Amino acid sequence: MIKYPTGQKSSEKKNSKEPVNFAGRGMNFEDEINRSNDYYREINKAIIYKKPTPIKVVGAHKTSTGSYQIDEAYFMQPSTTDYNGIYKGKYIDFEAKETRNVNLFPFANIHDNQLEHLFKVDEHGGIAFVLVRFTLKNTVYLLDAKVIKRLFEAKYRSIPLEIFQQEGHLVPPNYLAPVDYLKVVDQAYFD
Amino acid sequence: MIKYPTGQKSSEKKNSKEPVNFAGRGMNFEDEINRSNDYYREINKAIIYKKPTPIKVVGAHKTSTGSYQIDEAYFMQPSTTDYNGIYKGKYIDFEAKETRNVNLFPFANIHDNQLEHLFKVDEHGGIAFVLVRFTLKNTVYLLDAKVIKRLFEAKYRSIPLEIFQQEGHLVPPNYLAPVDYLKVVDQAYFD
Repeated sequence: MIKYPTGQKSSEKKNSKEPVNFAGRGMNFEDEINRSNDYYREINKAIIYKKPTPIKVVGAHKTSTGSYQIDEAYFMQPSTTDYNGIYKGKYIDFEAKETRNVNLFPFANIHDNQLEHLFKVDEHGGIAFVLVRFTLKNTVYLLDAKVIKRLFEAKYRSIPLEIFQQEGHLVPPNYLAPVDYLKVVDQAYFD
Repeated sequence: MIKYPTGQKSSEKKNSKEPVNFAGRGMNFEDEINRSNDYYREINKAIIYKKPTPIKVVGAHKTSTGSYQIDEAYFMQPSTTDYNGIYKGKYIDFEAKETRNVNLFPFANIHDNQLEHLFKVDEHGGIAFVLVRFTLKNTVYLLDAKVIKRLFEAKYRSIPLEIFQQEGHLVPPNYLAPVDYLKVVDQAYFD
């Protein structure tokens, strides 16, 4: 069994000027997926939403307008994935992640409870996958939960790019759906 | 067409000592549904979660531990329902509401965008319904989105109790699943 390193190669450039991102991901990728989902809903192709970020509210007060303003709260670790919904009558569930690595995607980038959730969804007959953007090459792959599970259970510490290329699906960009992943879902799950 | 009043009957007692509830619902009902969902996941019967309450973060600062503390945030109106997931391979989606009315459930208690979402899910082949607890009688009914849509489009301002009794399904309590709605989902959607 070949073990792949988790770390980032020293030849990669790190961008230290990235804006603070509370959700722990590059906002652009999330925005593009949200825009794609908006488009899918507009044309009535699928009903898929991003779940709100879980936040634990500790303190709040009533404002003069009668609504509540939160004064103290904390981001919580999500127990599930970010996106789910219905497509062609099927339950669909996925997580989206970015990496600046060139040749691999580290498992450390996804919480174990998110992986377990995806494996469960797959077990229950849903469509479950991860969308990974390799930022430096600007390529997005869809990788099915079954493939991820196989590598995870074989104690891989990261998913090599070749796995994405050979067993995953390259997601094409599209003007109206910037991350047109349903095109790839059609090939991967409905053909 | 009979039009039903939306208002609360003067004979009903209002409880002004109810605790502040940020999610806009009685916490007990939500807790009981969450506990039911926990149980369903524990026995691997279904993978259903409550979505986090959407919150718009306006201000935050980094704490000494490196995490973020939110200083200013606001509750947002949800664009979808509170609960969704997968059961027996099918997409399932529902909203849960309580009413202190005895003979009717006012449409004003559910946001239009939540209703539209349920109608869309139904249209796409998912299982879509509302769970309504009539607090004073402590009864819970499941009512399918198709029935709700019919009344909503006929401009009913509320759903009469008789509709729940005749076209809905009474949800039995259960020690391990306090709101054992999947028992009723089996009858309503899988028989």
